Amino acid sequence: MTNVAQEPNFDVHQLSHTELFTPVLADSLEFFTKILGMTVVHEEGDSIYLRGYEDVYQYSLILTQAEEAGMGFSAFRTSSQPALDRRVAALKEAGVEVEERTNNYGYGTSYRFKDLDGHVIELFWEVEKYKAPDHLASGLGNRAQRKPARGVPVRRIDHVNLMTHPDMVHKNHEFWRDVLGFRVREGVLNDKDEFFATWLSVSPLVHEVALMGDELGGHGRLHHLAFWYGMPQHLNDVSELCVEHGIPIEAGPLKHGVSQALCMYIIEPGGNRIELFGDSGYLIFDPDWETVKWAPEDAAKAIIWFGGELPETYFRYGTPRIEDETDELNCYFNPIKNSLEKEDMAIHISKEREKQLYETFNFKVKD
Amino acid sequence: MTNVAQEPNFDVHQLSHTELFTPVLADSLEFFTKILGMTVVHEEGDSIYLRGYEDVYQYSLILTQAEEAGMGFSAFRTSSQPALDRRVAALKEAGVEVEERTNNYGYGTSYRFKDLDGHVIELFWEVEKYKAPDHLASGLGNRAQRKPARGVPVRRIDHVNLMTHPDMVHKNHEFWRDVLGFRVREGVLNDKDEFFATWLSVSPLVHEVALMGDELGGHGRLHHLAFWYGMPQHLNDVSELCVEHGIPIEAGPLKHGVSQALCMYIIEPGGNRIELFGDSGYLIFDPDWETVKWAPEDAAKAIIWFGGELPETYFRYGTPRIEDETDELNCYFNPIKNSLEKEDMAIHISKEREKQLYETFNFKVKD
Amino acid sequence: MTNVAQEPNFDVHQLSHTELFTPVLADSLEFFTKILGMTVVHEEGDSIYLRGYEDVYQYSLILTQAEEAGMGFSAFRTSSQPALDRRVAALKEAGVEVEERTNNYGYGTSYRFKDLDGHVIELFWEVEKYKAPDHLASGLGNRAQRKPARGVPVRRIDHVNLMTHPDMVHKNHEFWRDVLGFRVREGVLNDKDEFFATWLSVSPLVHEVALMGDELGGHGRLHHLAFWYGMPQHLNDVSELCVEHGIPIEAGPLKHGVSQALCMYIIEPGGNRIELFGDSGYLIFDPDWETVKWAPEDAAKAIIWFGGELPETYFRYGTPRIEDETDELNCYFNPIKNSLEKEDMAIHISKEREKQLYETFNFKVKD
Amino acid sequence: MTNVAQEPNFDVHQLSHTELFTPVLADSLEFFTKILGMTVVHEEGDSIYLRGYEDVYQYSLILTQAEEAGMGFSAFRTSSQPALDRRVAALKEAGVEVEERTNNYGYGTSYRFKDLDGHVIELFWEVEKYKAPDHLASGLGNRAQRKPARGVPVRRIDHVNLMTHPDMVHKNHEFWRDVLGFRVREGVLNDKDEFFATWLSVSPLVHEVALMGDELGGHGRLHHLAFWYGMPQHLNDVSELCVEHGIPIEAGPLKHGVSQALCMYIIEPGGNRIELFGDSGYLIFDPDWETVKWAPEDAAKAIIWFGGELPETYFRYGTPRIEDETDELNCYFNPIKNSLEKEDMAIHISKEREKQLYETFNFKVKD
Repeated sequence: MTNVAQEPNFDVHQLSHTELFTPVLADSLEFFTKILGMTVVHEEGDSIYLRGYEDVYQYSLILTQAEEAGMGFSAFRTSSQPALDRRVAALKEAGVEVEERTNNYGYGTSYRFKDLDGHVIELFWEVEKYKAPDHLASGLGNRAQRKPARGVPVRRIDHVNLMTHPDMVHKNHEFWRDVLGFRVREGVLNDKDEFFATWLSVSPLVHEVALMGDELGGHGRLHHLAFWYGMPQHLNDVSELCVEHGIPIEAGPLKHGVSQALCMYIIEPGGNRIELFGDSGYLIFDPDWETVKWAPEDAAKAIIWFGGELPETYFRYGTPRIEDETDELNCYFNPIKNSLEKEDMAIHISKEREKQLYETFNFKVKD
Repeated sequence: MTNVAQEPNFDVHQLSHTELFTPVLADSLEFFTKILGMTVVHEEGDSIYLRGYEDVYQYSLILTQAEEAGMGFSAFRTSSQPALDRRVAALKEAGVEVEERTNNYGYGTSYRFKDLDGHVIELFWEVEKYKAPDHLASGLGNRAQRKPARGVPVRRIDHVNLMTHPDMVHKNHEFWRDVLGFRVREGVLNDKDEFFATWLSVSPLVHEVALMGDELGGHGRLHHLAFWYGMPQHLNDVSELCVEHGIPIEAGPLKHGVSQALCMYIIEPGGNRIELFGDSGYLIFDPDWETVKWAPEDAAKAIIWFGGELPETYFRYGTPRIEDETDELNCYFNPIKNSLEKEDMAIHISKEREKQLYETFNFKVKD
Repeated sequence: MTNVAQEPNFDVHQLSHTELFTPVLADSLEFFTKILGMTVVHEEGDSIYLRGYEDVYQYSLILTQAEEAGMGFSAFRTSSQPALDRRVAALKEAGVEVEERTNNYGYGTSYRFKDLDGHVIELFWEVEKYKAPDHLASGLGNRAQRKPARGVPVRRIDHVNLMTHPDMVHKNHEFWRDVLGFRVREGVLNDKDEFFATWLSVSPLVHEVALMGDELGGHGRLHHLAFWYGMPQHLNDVSELCVEHGIPIEAGPLKHGVSQALCMYIIEPGGNRIELFGDSGYLIFDPDWETVKWAPEDAAKAIIWFGGELPETYFRYGTPRIEDETDELNCYFNPIKNSLEKEDMAIHISKEREKQLYETFNFKVKD
Repeated sequence: MTNVAQEPNFDVHQLSHTELFTPVLADSLEFFTKILGMTVVHEEGDSIYLRGYEDVYQYSLILTQAEEAGMGFSAFRTSSQPALDRRVAALKEAGVEVEERTNNYGYGTSYRFKDLDGHVIELFWEVEKYKAPDHLASGLGNRAQRKPARGVPVRRIDHVNLMTHPDMVHKNHEFWRDVLGFRVREGVLNDKDEFFATWLSVSPLVHEVALMGDELGGHGRLHHLAFWYGMPQHLNDVSELCVEHGIPIEAGPLKHGVSQALCMYIIEPGGNRIELFGDSGYLIFDPDWETVKWAPEDAAKAIIWFGGELPETYFRYGTPRIEDETDELNCYFNPIKNSLEKEDMAIHISKEREKQLYETFNFKVKD
């Protein structure tokens, strides 16, 4: 019963927002607003800013028109200004290059850097709380915005899963733990007894960040961005909409062993994988929680507690794509057919032809 | 967008366990094990120690045979040993009498004191994690114990609602906030613009502690102890068992505005009110969350967002009872009939007769 | 084990559609399409025809502009043409006046008559099955239309509850049983051992028709029309929308003892009570099911198995209104404030003023 | 709009009970009582009789000790005595051999015969309704028995899926339709435009009987017996129990296109596949419902609307086993390891050794 532990570091406090790149901004927008029920709060340049109805700040998602799908960056709010100062100092002390950014829409000065595998991350403290206009205001004092009557509305951003080169997962998790102060909640071991995948958090959630081995050997790719429902039925409801409107469900609804998440994975029209989280999972209040380590032989149970299997694409497909069609493991998203395929449609046709095809496809929720 | 806030105090970390007094230990035990699916881990003197299958430490509930129902104490774990030391120092500095206790089953040295209204509270750091015996072990590395196949099993302790003299709620909430470091998440105001009820937490949960005005003017009483399901269906399932086995459902399933809790309230055979929490509510990750204040005229919405009304007993009945039958507001639990009544059965019959009646009643789950 | 029973009569086969009168057609339409997710298929004169996405025929609801709320008629399909002929013959033999109608939109010749308390009913056989236009077609061969992405869409019409003069309930249930062939599934007895309320069906559903005593002593009024979700979560989801948009929830979500229905009751903007049915209840496959009779002293359990109480308005409010403000039991719907009240707003103001007020109110789902 | 249809035949009315053979009676009993919460009502010879808490008659399941798993018979109740007489006459007229049986526990004279593929079926009319003993009685007048507080209790029997030689499915479905009066609700076509699988019913349920092609070419085998929950959450709850206690989940929870069933498939300790039905599916009230025909190219959607894929075993494994290990498609249940395997454990070991192993395994719910 001797619980010797150093005092936890509470400096980084929550995942706030993520920028997703999409080659088909209008289609992605249609999906996030009509199927996931998100609300547009701002447009600027090639970017559109959206929020779930329980997100507390202005927005949790930035959609930005780009050549390739992928994550622009993910931003975390600290627990105070001094906490922000301490983390920036720690980053610099660790030799990490930090860029100060002052022109952010909806939040104050941020410090942008890359983790060891190249994912772009920001830390910040000052932020603008969302105050709904009258026609969107909720009767609930504790809810930032009325629940929309469109699609199956997600409540808030939940976590981001960062695909990481398999040789970098273990090292990178030490960076998130030691420099940023994340606690390591669970991990799946490889046969060298190092982590092939880890789940880290700064709150009772099992993870705001997961690091998962990229079987294609890429660096800095996005595996998925997750939004939260908290209710199993909403996964069934949104599955109906996805099937009927041609949004590919890659896996689920299913129940992971890791995090006990009832969830599903879909590919939004821009090609990014989105997880929808259908219950609260379990919450960790124990301040000296011992990392749950799944041995390689228990990985199957870690991945699926019950519900269907994960397909092979789950361990290979990430954004942006890796352009190597000689690699037998590779797979590509075809945003025109809305499916994952072995062949890379995008590099076999001219940009002009692609544009024409997109215009033909044109994702629309007809109602 | 200027978020000026002092650094949050993260010293108190979670609600760990609560002791309930019961005049009918065997009946209460039958209820908590057969209806709520809890597991006995220890017996000692007049006390039995029980756990929900996701509680991380040895137990979350102590049932103790006593003359009267009520809360023995509630215990909170700190985030570290230094954090514990800081809070004990703060208590002493605030002039609070603190008792050091070293003989606790399953946890280390604790510091016991009373809040301003007389509720008995403990703080501690050292604790024994639960390790299930083989026949109760789960295949899930992140679950302390296999989910039982009995009743509708609760997952873990959630929060405690402390009935407080109406003139003390506001003052007492300052004690919890300033001396212990709880954050004030929501509150219902009275017409003096002070809190009639407040909900406080040290985690993203909206509350581990609520303080609620006692309409009978009592001090230090228990309103309810809450256990967590996280799933709406389980409220319907346990309602079936309660109705069929004669456990009174005082209110619900219903949805509060405050905390957005889908929940229900029942009276366990010993007379204590138990809340069952049927979803995750909303979680607060915002480190400088502004207290949600419900004006007196919005109290109805704060109390019920949707679902049936709360009965008058909800604002008057607490444990232990107040022995004043001249008070028209008073109400009593009759554990023999298993119902809330205007008359106090217990003081009108001899202890011997009461014992005989209890033996006649004898709550049993017949299956 | 001697099951002596005459051969059941399977002639009347299902509830097909109901016409509701509404003084505020545009507001009612907004509610049924934006909150309950129904789809308009036809407009004709003062009527608009709507369908739930799993209704098999063209529509299940006709909304008709009228001075007063209430039920126009309810129509039942028979199991064949000969079955229709047999029932029409039986009606005539019973001395019931039957009107043949040939100009029905979406279905063939119907036979219209009144039950003993004056509710207008139709029987018919020929009907047009719904074939969705391409942009509304489902990928499911067994689903008439894609589930809409608006509001919380109801699946199909379920049943109609016909408020009946208390002295007529028992006699009227014999009419439905003996002349039309309905089976009596459950009933609540009054102290004369006759039914105060009965639930009748021609299918495994516990009821397509309920007859319930009208405490105001009215004749031929509508208590409610019910639509089916089949899922408990959808009641919580639609409750959110109702609360936020000012649709009064009269009661629920709750669970009845009778029919084991998890359900809720709301008042649509036109003033008619609508029930939303949140699970399958229980189904009756037993061909010689013995009527379940609830004694007067068990009526409370019959009405509420668990969940909040029913308010007094439940037993008094029906449509159309009864214009007797001297009756202390009477209550009225105020469509401008969207609430049930003791005073009849409608007769105290001029038609012109009322129209102005309606225009001010103007129910809209803002999103 | 000309709905020309002959009058439907309502003679066969409902599936009443099924006998399952099991080589491990005690283990099967433990599973059905402790995991599925069924109640034993009778024991006789090598058979034990069990009921779900909403089954209306004495029992819905007979477990009988036998060398091999499989279905003993399935029994259907008719809508009246004359209806029974008519169906028996029709069977005899069709040249079917009919055995009259008079010594049935809990029901009257039955008529036993085989369908065209050799499944043993009974028809009967007289039956004993279940009257719960006091300690098992429900407070609900419409519920035959109180819901047990054990496991995740099934409500009632739902349907039986009869594996049929692929060349016999189409012909056999005509037998069920023309001789017994079942209506053909849905079907998956093979490339000869005949049914590879059909779903038939005599009630608004989509099926009480399914006929499905046996890829191993067997005759008269059982694919699965289904019990009904009606609630999605209960599938997740029972999945937890199955995973923790080593009951193999072959597939699901998932949503079929056919019947819109949210369901899962497990293998009970005796080796029989059991389906658990987690919602109401859709109900067919339309008396001239047109059979939904899924083309071969739509079979995937017919099988899975959303949720994981069905494994190959689903189309090959049935009971009793087919003893041909040279067939590459074949698969076997190993009741000692509780899993489906390529090799037939049972024929490679002596009966004595098998018995020893069973005793070692000994399925027990430890709680």
